[in-house]
Amino acid sequence: MRAASTTSVSPVDAATEFIWIVGDPIAQVKAPQFMNPHYLSRGQNLLVLPAPVGAADLRQVFDAARRLANLRGWIVTVPHKVALAGWQDQLSAAARLTGAVNAIRFQDGCTFGDILDGTGFVEGLRRRGYRVEGRRALVLGAGGVGSAISLALAQAGAERVAICDIDAARARALVERLSRAAGVRTRFETGRPESAAAFDLLVNASPLGMGEDTRSPLDARQFLPSHTVAEVVMTPEFTPFLRAAQKAGCEIHPGKQVLEGQMQALLEFFG
Amino acid sequence: MRAASTTSVSPVDAATEFIWIVGDPIAQVKAPQFMNPHYLSRGQNLLVLPAPVGAADLRQVFDAARRLANLRGWIVTVPHKVALAGWQDQLSAAARLTGAVNAIRFQDGCTFGDILDGTGFVEGLRRRGYRVEGRRALVLGAGGVGSAISLALAQAGAERVAICDIDAARARALVERLSRAAGVRTRFETGRPESAAAFDLLVNASPLGMGEDTRSPLDARQFLPSHTVAEVVMTPEFTPFLRAAQKAGCEIHPGKQVLEGQMQALLEFFG
Repeated sequence: MRAASTTSVSPVDAATEFIWIVGDPIAQVKAPQFMNPHYLSRGQNLLVLPAPVGAADLRQVFDAARRLANLRGWIVTVPHKVALAGWQDQLSAAARLTGAVNAIRFQDGCTFGDILDGTGFVEGLRRRGYRVEGRRALVLGAGGVGSAISLALAQAGAERVAICDIDAARARALVERLSRAAGVRTRFETGRPESAAAFDLLVNASPLGMGEDTRSPLDARQFLPSHTVAEVVMTPEFTPFLRAAQKAGCEIHPGKQVLEGQMQALLEFFG
Repeated sequence: MRAASTTSVSPVDAATEFIWIVGDPIAQVKAPQFMNPHYLSRGQNLLVLPAPVGAADLRQVFDAARRLANLRGWIVTVPHKVALAGWQDQLSAAARLTGAVNAIRFQDGCTFGDILDGTGFVEGLRRRGYRVEGRRALVLGAGGVGSAISLALAQAGAERVAICDIDAARARALVERLSRAAGVRTRFETGRPESAAAFDLLVNASPLGMGEDTRSPLDARQFLPSHTVAEVVMTPEFTPFLRAAQKAGCEIHPGKQVLEGQMQALLEFFG
């Protein structure tokens, strides 16, 4: 129960279409509040709805949901991103690379899974006026987020993408997979924090600095005023990594930009 | 696509609950427009949505839908009312009698199916100030609608319910089933159109008079000014049955009241 109000959401009728945001738990999701006002303002009869689905029911619900003619697709959140990647008819290059999906389109009886972490990141930078074409990027972290961001940077025209990880073998393996998978002219390589001076864009794609964690993936002395520095950690907004960069006179891009960029990427994904 | 507007529907957030109206086709349904403004005005974070589901997918979608924790249930429309009656954990007396459901509640892992044609009919009369307690009713038509209405009249306290049908055996069988099933003190019997004078309430529960059909289930000479006359056919609003009753000075209740009563019954069903 809550107070009655008429706010910015389309009225529902027989022609309304839907997108579910699927996760477990679901209480934290904000996609309905972010995306529905956008659809309303565009005159689209489309509504984003929460769908709480536990792991045990996921396959059954997915197989049934794709049969609903007015369901455009799913936004996928924790803990279903990897499981769902295995059940799609088609996957984007990013989804194949990361083995995860966070957006699924149902169309003509087929399903197409994508992961928008990388394109959302690039879109977040673009919305703030930073373009990655021709840039040299150092990505700190070779996990799922680092993989998706590295690929998206390449797809957006970065000249070089260097990846470093505390697990050097993991970084090497990602470079190999990117070199095979990307289908772009970008040069992928493994990197070292100490070589930051050779790059334009520094990205923390690791969980270092999240919450109570006071660590940074880069020593403060590595930052140069010429660096553009971007973060994926959202809480706190200003991580030790970003604070050090700011102190060094760098242009900084906090993690909340990724969320904004993801929302934009989701709107484009569902059309 | 349609013009943007902010009308009376709750904004969706992670806590919103849903009711699907399930049918094939779905384009004609009006439950979202009828029910959502009601929920909004009560401050309930609950939304009725269209769900187009074909017969071939019905079982799969039903089994999955009942696992969605924020789905309160289904409103069922053509052509799924009979099939779904077979898959419920529990059925109301009306659903058992008619072998059909048009409303299903999901609760604590169980499903409960009901058919609100009869209670909606009685509710429609009640909302116009007509109470059936102690009345003698003649129900014309022993099909699904006639069955549900006969039971609901009895449950609402009618003294006698007589049923007639062009198929006399069908009417007899219904009387037998009602007598066993109802658990009420009402006297059920087979009736004849010629004995209308012995009744207070005359109900057309047959399709006679629908659309282009100019027939009436009762000869015009049977109507007395003391009769209250109710119709289930909705198009045209004034059937030959109702016109003859009006001409004879009867109080009349058009079929659209049943729809209004059903909406009220649905709101109560889903709580």
